[in-house]
Amino acid sequence: MSFKAALDDIQFNLFEMGLLKQIQVLPGFEEITDDIVPAVLEENAKFVEEQLAPLNKVGDMEHAQWSNGEVKSPTGFKDAFKAYTESGWQALQHEVEYGGQGFPKLIAAATSENLHAANMSFGLCPMLTDGCVEAIRQAGSEQQKNLFIPPLLDGRWTGTMNLTEPQAGSDLALVNSKAIRQEDGTYRLFGQKIFITYGEHDMSENIIHLVLARTPDAPKGVKGISLFVVPKFLVNEDGSLGKRNDVFCTSIEHKLGIHASPTAVLVFGDNKGEVGEGAVAYLVGEENAGLSYMFIMMNEARFNVGIQGIAVSERASQQALAYAKERLQGSSLDRQTDRQAGPVPIIHHPDVQRMLQTMQSLTQGARAIALYAATAHDLSTHHTDDTVRGHNKKIQEYLVPIVKGFSTEMSLEVTSLGVQVHGGMGFIEETGAAQYYRDARILPIYEGTTAIQANDFIGRKTLRDNGEVALYFVAEMKKTREELQQSSVQHAKQMADYFSNAITAYQSAIETILDYAVHDQLREAYAVSVPFLMLAGYVHSAWHFAKAALVSQDKGTPFNKEKQQLALFYMTQVLPRVTGLSETIKASRYVPQMVIRD
Amino acid sequence: MSFKAALDDIQFNLFEMGLLKQIQVLPGFEEITDDIVPAVLEENAKFVEEQLAPLNKVGDMEHAQWSNGEVKSPTGFKDAFKAYTESGWQALQHEVEYGGQGFPKLIAAATSENLHAANMSFGLCPMLTDGCVEAIRQAGSEQQKNLFIPPLLDGRWTGTMNLTEPQAGSDLALVNSKAIRQEDGTYRLFGQKIFITYGEHDMSENIIHLVLARTPDAPKGVKGISLFVVPKFLVNEDGSLGKRNDVFCTSIEHKLGIHASPTAVLVFGDNKGEVGEGAVAYLVGEENAGLSYMFIMMNEARFNVGIQGIAVSERASQQALAYAKERLQGSSLDRQTDRQAGPVPIIHHPDVQRMLQTMQSLTQGARAIALYAATAHDLSTHHTDDTVRGHNKKIQEYLVPIVKGFSTEMSLEVTSLGVQVHGGMGFIEETGAAQYYRDARILPIYEGTTAIQANDFIGRKTLRDNGEVALYFVAEMKKTREELQQSSVQHAKQMADYFSNAITAYQSAIETILDYAVHDQLREAYAVSVPFLMLAGYVHSAWHFAKAALVSQDKGTPFNKEKQQLALFYMTQVLPRVTGLSETIKASRYVPQMVIRD
Repeated sequence: MSFKAALDDIQFNLFEMGLLKQIQVLPGFEEITDDIVPAVLEENAKFVEEQLAPLNKVGDMEHAQWSNGEVKSPTGFKDAFKAYTESGWQALQHEVEYGGQGFPKLIAAATSENLHAANMSFGLCPMLTDGCVEAIRQAGSEQQKNLFIPPLLDGRWTGTMNLTEPQAGSDLALVNSKAIRQEDGTYRLFGQKIFITYGEHDMSENIIHLVLARTPDAPKGVKGISLFVVPKFLVNEDGSLGKRNDVFCTSIEHKLGIHASPTAVLVFGDNKGEVGEGAVAYLVGEENAGLSYMFIMMNEARFNVGIQGIAVSERASQQALAYAKERLQGSSLDRQTDRQAGPVPIIHHPDVQRMLQTMQSLTQGARAIALYAATAHDLSTHHTDDTVRGHNKKIQEYLVPIVKGFSTEMSLEVTSLGVQVHGGMGFIEETGAAQYYRDARILPIYEGTTAIQANDFIGRKTLRDNGEVALYFVAEMKKTREELQQSSVQHAKQMADYFSNAITAYQSAIETILDYAVHDQLREAYAVSVPFLMLAGYVHSAWHFAKAALVSQDKGTPFNKEKQQLALFYMTQVLPRVTGLSETIKASRYVPQMVIRD
Repeated sequence: MSFKAALDDIQFNLFEMGLLKQIQVLPGFEEITDDIVPAVLEENAKFVEEQLAPLNKVGDMEHAQWSNGEVKSPTGFKDAFKAYTESGWQALQHEVEYGGQGFPKLIAAATSENLHAANMSFGLCPMLTDGCVEAIRQAGSEQQKNLFIPPLLDGRWTGTMNLTEPQAGSDLALVNSKAIRQEDGTYRLFGQKIFITYGEHDMSENIIHLVLARTPDAPKGVKGISLFVVPKFLVNEDGSLGKRNDVFCTSIEHKLGIHASPTAVLVFGDNKGEVGEGAVAYLVGEENAGLSYMFIMMNEARFNVGIQGIAVSERASQQALAYAKERLQGSSLDRQTDRQAGPVPIIHHPDVQRMLQTMQSLTQGARAIALYAATAHDLSTHHTDDTVRGHNKKIQEYLVPIVKGFSTEMSLEVTSLGVQVHGGMGFIEETGAAQYYRDARILPIYEGTTAIQANDFIGRKTLRDNGEVALYFVAEMKKTREELQQSSVQHAKQMADYFSNAITAYQSAIETILDYAVHDQLREAYAVSVPFLMLAGYVHSAWHFAKAALVSQDKGTPFNKEKQQLALFYMTQVLPRVTGLSETIKASRYVPQMVIRD
């Protein structure tokens, strides 16, 4: 089936949920008008639907192909990347000064979802390039910015992030690639990096690797990591390409999913290329400050991986819905219709509806959180008032692990239900549902596993400010609950009751976590960090559904009616999961440490 | 890593949980002694570990290969099948009269788990053959039994089930293959069947297809379905093979998982073969009674698919545990150890323990349910007392949808966590964790989707006897809860409290479902049938954990200590999910019917 970008729900969030109007008043975003936004989104939708979505299965079947150090992308990918960048989508969210279009994160989050929903394997290349651009913009020298950013935005070059080494996955303290300072101020870099997304490919003239490495005299651990630019081809001062640098792709991985996206093993300084000994590398910012720069990219990337979770869920939901409307099987439970009338489309069966509504409500809930977080990002960077900027920075940072952790975990459930709705056909690769199930499985792993998001959520986001932001949300939710209770929304009372229980569970979980910390029971806190993160995700989704039910109540469009229904479904059928999570968190003191036997 | 059959937990269930002694007293099972059982299980473990487990990845990589109507099995499969049948494993549970060994279902369930844990794709061939044997034994003529069963048990032939047609997946009323009666009492069969597991392969001389079809004058719907034997090669009266019958494999499916198991499209009566027009078919039992015979096979198969869920979960758990002990990453949270001491095995991290304990406790809980159900099966067939037989038949039938539905749904979670424990390595196919994730995905689909299990669970198993069996279990659970509460098991009070809440949730869910039925609110009942089934699965697991905690309390073996800990983990960290499920079930009256837009 053909994919359609989820413009109805995206625009519902932008317009009816009032996100867009908060950023339209910010300096720099004056041109993001009510007319421009739908035009841009429709243009973007048209592009991804026509140019990228049809390549999704092609890429899955052909895979990226490694041969003799080079990687061939699947049929159509190179042309599609050219079209993508020439149409300006790569430049959308970046600064006008370096060739960008200066759009807010809120709009970029929407186009990013469309990109990944159409073709997640393809989308990783622009996504990594965005992160590379952002790190150079924030931490690079003026020369680096001028030299590297414009070609990264216009599609001539792409960017990568090089963190992982075989012995250093989540634990960057273990990084041991070496960078040796030369007399001319450049460095020579030696080491092996693995899991490098689009670390080698044939879609651009050059690849700009951002690489973590240590200088010889660096302190141990994460405080001794520096960040370097290592271009595949050296770049002359006029921007033209020079010698082939000593970074080579020795293999790519054979993966469960995202087959079209090459996951490269890169070797630096193995005496190949045209530059002599060691890959030529340029320091970004200061020595030993690499980790903080890497976090710039990583926070970008974590948010975007969350968007990928929403995107693949949207795609899986659409396909399951279409199949459920077409597939005839079984008789209707509805007594009004004739049971002898022959088989009905399976969408009429209660459990198929349960699956579809679960898929849709999880997806829409996670989307609402992400677009809300993107708005906070824009407010944190563009608002004129320091206090507002600071407040929104905290909001956005609190939400990033939820966007990453919750959206990707729920995408496993949604893509699994997508297979299930198809029955036996779902297990056949030709159907396509299985691809989403396979592709999604990387999302809770890369850019920091769910446990790492959950530890960040507890440690840096909840404990560090003593629960201030967390409890701010609890207070806001209570206001919405109040409003819902007093509204004339259908089943408002029931929804408010369920929401109320969930808010109580959230507040109690926050207090439990704070309490563990006060008593130095860190193991008790971290043993339930993932349940706590998931609980927060469910409750935040509920909050946005409550607001959505309120704003959509008097509107007669089919989409608004569906939103009302989905809110009711979510509150009564999905949200109750928080009760169990809450009990789990409270019981963490009884969790036994495993006996580790040889 | 190498696979080890889970003999510790299997024997814990057989001996310490007292299952074996219930069946040792039954007539026919006198030889199933305390000495024989471990010897058989160890022999079986040795066989599957050495002969089948190493072929699991081979089969995944090579796939079954179709060419010109024939299917080539992966390297090693043919020899392994010969060894499997020659060692007598295929004959284990079948009647001595036809060449079987007459072992009880309880032991067969254990060896079946070992088989599927070692190699699920391989295991499907013996599993389907078991179903075929059982249907012929129960519904076939004496001649059919004597002709077909012995070669099915000794490995010369294998069996299949042919239900599905392109338009008839779960809905057998739509079957339209035709069988036309001939003057000699045989039939000629025409039609196309899809999704036929091991419908064609090269591991045996002949294949016995059991096929659902309609005679020309059959009534519409499921009451007009008859069951036929259609051998690939006709069988002479002396058992030797005759002409090639008109059943051919036109293709096999390209699937997400179980790559080594050929899933065939079979065409009957396409004027190929050596028998003239139509495939030669032999009626099993009476015309138009095929559905009830098919249910014999299906109930067998459903139980065994549940076992597959437990098996693949066991395999995934073992691999994740081994990886977690080896992989060094991050520092220990434990203040007692030196944080500068370098990275620790990831099993020391609380969230890795949470994942591993979730995997292990879900697996062990489901195993306890399945072995308990197998015992009920044996009591229902072999006990001398009518009342005991009848009671146990109800017990067993009530548990089959739980064994099938719950064990397979939980296997999705367990195999997904298995990938997650491996981090980025989990997404790389070479690691093996991804194969379990892919293989498991068929389990909640074939032999009736989870929704079909759940509808059976509500309709035939809960409503039909007005909740009698369901409430019997509630009463039994309350007794165990009482016993636990008064015991000196560590944290007995906490476990009993959590268990008590879960029993209340179960009872309340049963009453809600009965109430919906009384008020003819079937849609409300079926809208939460899957949550109800899952709730039952969690509570039944908890019951067995409660009993396990009681029987293992004073025993000092490492396994018993782990069981105690796992019981505590399960009660406090997994079981609370039922609270949410219970709320969901109660709220089913608010579930909105979907607006179906074109």
